[in-house]
Amino acid sequence: MSKTAITPTRAEDFNEWYQNLIAAADLAENSPVRGCMTIKPYGWAIWELMRDEMDRRIKENGVQNANFPLLIPIEYFNREAEHVAGFAKECAVVTHHRLKIIDGQLQPDPDSKLTEPYIIRPTSETIIGEAMSRWVQSYRDLPLKLNQWVNVLRWEMRTRLFLRSAEFNWQEGHDVFATHAEANDDAQKMWRVYAEYAENVLAIPNLAMGEKTPAERFAGADHTWTIEHIMQDGKALQFCTSHDLGQNFSKSFDIKYLDKDGQLKHAWTTSWGTSTRMMGSVFLTHSDDDGLILPPKIAPYQIVIIPIMAEQNDFAHDVAAKMRTVGLRVLVDDTDARSPDKMWKWIKCGVPLRVEIGAREAAGDTATIIRRDIGKESKKTLPVSELVAIASELMGQIQADMLAAARVSAEKMIFEVFDLTALDKKLSAGAIGFFRIKYDLTLCPEFEALAEKYKISHRCLDDADPDFVFVAKSY
Amino acid sequence: MSKTAITPTRAEDFNEWYQNLIAAADLAENSPVRGCMTIKPYGWAIWELMRDEMDRRIKENGVQNANFPLLIPIEYFNREAEHVAGFAKECAVVTHHRLKIIDGQLQPDPDSKLTEPYIIRPTSETIIGEAMSRWVQSYRDLPLKLNQWVNVLRWEMRTRLFLRSAEFNWQEGHDVFATHAEANDDAQKMWRVYAEYAENVLAIPNLAMGEKTPAERFAGADHTWTIEHIMQDGKALQFCTSHDLGQNFSKSFDIKYLDKDGQLKHAWTTSWGTSTRMMGSVFLTHSDDDGLILPPKIAPYQIVIIPIMAEQNDFAHDVAAKMRTVGLRVLVDDTDARSPDKMWKWIKCGVPLRVEIGAREAAGDTATIIRRDIGKESKKTLPVSELVAIASELMGQIQADMLAAARVSAEKMIFEVFDLTALDKKLSAGAIGFFRIKYDLTLCPEFEALAEKYKISHRCLDDADPDFVFVAKSY
Repeated sequence: MSKTAITPTRAEDFNEWYQNLIAAADLAENSPVRGCMTIKPYGWAIWELMRDEMDRRIKENGVQNANFPLLIPIEYFNREAEHVAGFAKECAVVTHHRLKIIDGQLQPDPDSKLTEPYIIRPTSETIIGEAMSRWVQSYRDLPLKLNQWVNVLRWEMRTRLFLRSAEFNWQEGHDVFATHAEANDDAQKMWRVYAEYAENVLAIPNLAMGEKTPAERFAGADHTWTIEHIMQDGKALQFCTSHDLGQNFSKSFDIKYLDKDGQLKHAWTTSWGTSTRMMGSVFLTHSDDDGLILPPKIAPYQIVIIPIMAEQNDFAHDVAAKMRTVGLRVLVDDTDARSPDKMWKWIKCGVPLRVEIGAREAAGDTATIIRRDIGKESKKTLPVSELVAIASELMGQIQADMLAAARVSAEKMIFEVFDLTALDKKLSAGAIGFFRIKYDLTLCPEFEALAEKYKISHRCLDDADPDFVFVAKSY
Repeated sequence: MSKTAITPTRAEDFNEWYQNLIAAADLAENSPVRGCMTIKPYGWAIWELMRDEMDRRIKENGVQNANFPLLIPIEYFNREAEHVAGFAKECAVVTHHRLKIIDGQLQPDPDSKLTEPYIIRPTSETIIGEAMSRWVQSYRDLPLKLNQWVNVLRWEMRTRLFLRSAEFNWQEGHDVFATHAEANDDAQKMWRVYAEYAENVLAIPNLAMGEKTPAERFAGADHTWTIEHIMQDGKALQFCTSHDLGQNFSKSFDIKYLDKDGQLKHAWTTSWGTSTRMMGSVFLTHSDDDGLILPPKIAPYQIVIIPIMAEQNDFAHDVAAKMRTVGLRVLVDDTDARSPDKMWKWIKCGVPLRVEIGAREAAGDTATIIRRDIGKESKKTLPVSELVAIASELMGQIQADMLAAARVSAEKMIFEVFDLTALDKKLSAGAIGFFRIKYDLTLCPEFEALAEKYKISHRCLDDADPDFVFVAKSY
């Protein structure tokens, strides 16, 4: 059996493999603050690239970025009944504004107790709704489309790096429209923006996307659309959500506009978001037993050049400089580590293309390349001039191949089941993946029992045919 | 007397003028959350440009971005004595993790009280110090240079948009070195990065920069360097700070490394930061009685094109398209507002160059341009081809002219005083500005009395001659 860079392997222990994968690429760690993670430089560099690609798409859709307060008055939070019911159980509450040493211990100063406590935003529909009620006066102010890139906090009990954490970073879009048709279209449009982004930027296929069933809807939404990605262990990862909020928030926050006909009307709002959780989707989709595999579009280093001996350092830097002229992100690892250690380091970090330059390559003005997604079968030596000429195209090829490979692998984990007996049989036989079944069949106590037994749930309706629903275990 | 777009004028009531300036350009507003502001889209677009320029410089200095938790355990905060003394009086304390309806009121659930409360970071030396103690083991791990772009919160009593708010956005850099010399150099290097940025990006001259006197130092620092900008009303605005933290945090957080000589040694740390407060410096430096004047490098729209009649809309869009090909940010205001209203709107928003296109211009393939910083004296009509050819250079010219003008205006507000009697005389005669005086002369009760009487304080030593100190009122 060949040795792998990450132990245990996925087959041996998927959960521990994931933890070690994250550690091996030095992406993030659990912080001493309960449920919160620290994203380390390599992880954050990936996020910055992901964020910039997303931000560009958001702006192209006519949305403007802004910035709203972190703290939300409890009273706001309380105005939308479903919303408070959904979030009140898991929020951080700020009750004091000063510390004081009492009995030798630094503690909240009782004299600084707030008359009205604040909560740290778990999401910002309420505080943004309040602003919208002032900013929207006339039909001329509509549509109003806002987004913010911020941290939010939900007091989660069981957390996992990138997949679930108390604090996380995200973008939250909040739009207001004059009519329900526009709002509904907008929620679906942004959901499709997310779908395009998943495939074209992250190389993750969208095989299960559709509306959430009522039980899984956002607290306060009339409709929630989602994309549920199929991870290598068959579990679902909710990639994004986009909500048609109807008039729920416009009524709670009094967002009204004077229409052309002289009537004062409640507006219609949407919200839509993606978070650092998307990174979990990337890592759980593309990685293998040797570590991360990053799609070139979000790789901090698309190419790493490894001089085998220090004598090749200068030549390696020359090659790097040429590759940078075509806009590629290139690193030369000229540290004094041993070259096999360097190779394994960058394999674990998922750099799409490794370029090795030994004495033979330097003498012949050539370079040896190995694709991370394919491995040693892709190894070949070619003239540097040719490498520079094809490098950008090669990045595009790797990006496309990764999407295709992920599609093949995920498609194998979707099962059609025609009744609950078949579902039970599949699950009891240990099948892992998404089960596509008539939605109607799942609206009964028998399904509830199976759901509890196998810890599965409605992930989403199938947008291609909303009479069907995908059920799966989920992250 | 000519009418101004902002009333009152600066001369009439500077503070109210500032408030109305911010409102007229739709930059930000006070939020319903005590002491916190909402940054509106136009304000945030300026910040994004400022942030990107700063971020590039930070990365060019070998610093990596990362992301640390929002919440800090009280115990961490308590480890550095001066630090806690400096920040404990003004922080938000999280004490509960759930809400519950009690007596019909949504309140913190007593059962969710935290054993150890958290504070919302006012700054992150402590939580980052804890991580560094694990990440730094050997001299090979040094230097380690980290930065994060995050929100922080300090419970401020008196707040003003962009100048002082409870929550604000900033970057905080945190570096670790093996030796004191390196740390001290680093703190000064990042301070000089800020100085270069102020002049070249924000067009603000650095006429008072140097070390902070002990009373004004950061809580926990051995040395703090700052730049104090001179606002149009003569008050000081602290633009940035950069700290040599000595071994204060490395000792409190046990940041040690194994040196080449086999000895375990405490490291030396620095921290350095700039915030959305820099926007206050931009607005208070460059604006006039007609509104904002933005330096081209941070203007969301560098050029606004105003078609006088709807008939010129197409022509205006053609001109805009040509200007965008040379990389400029151009807006065509083809809304149905009256053209004088459009002109005033963009004057108030500080767009560096206004292009007006009426029937005569469209017919002659020309355009009429007016620089915001100079006003109608700069008005001229020129062929569109010529405008496109010179537009980029013109942006550079405006940027340079704005710096020069700001320098002339600020230089007039620096006064040399040779003793405390002269200082008193100047101040009692109503002089506004910075007073440069021998530092020694200010270390006595007589100076304290003057400081209290006129609400002035040490802003910083004069880096050109640290025997002198600048004293001024400050924001």
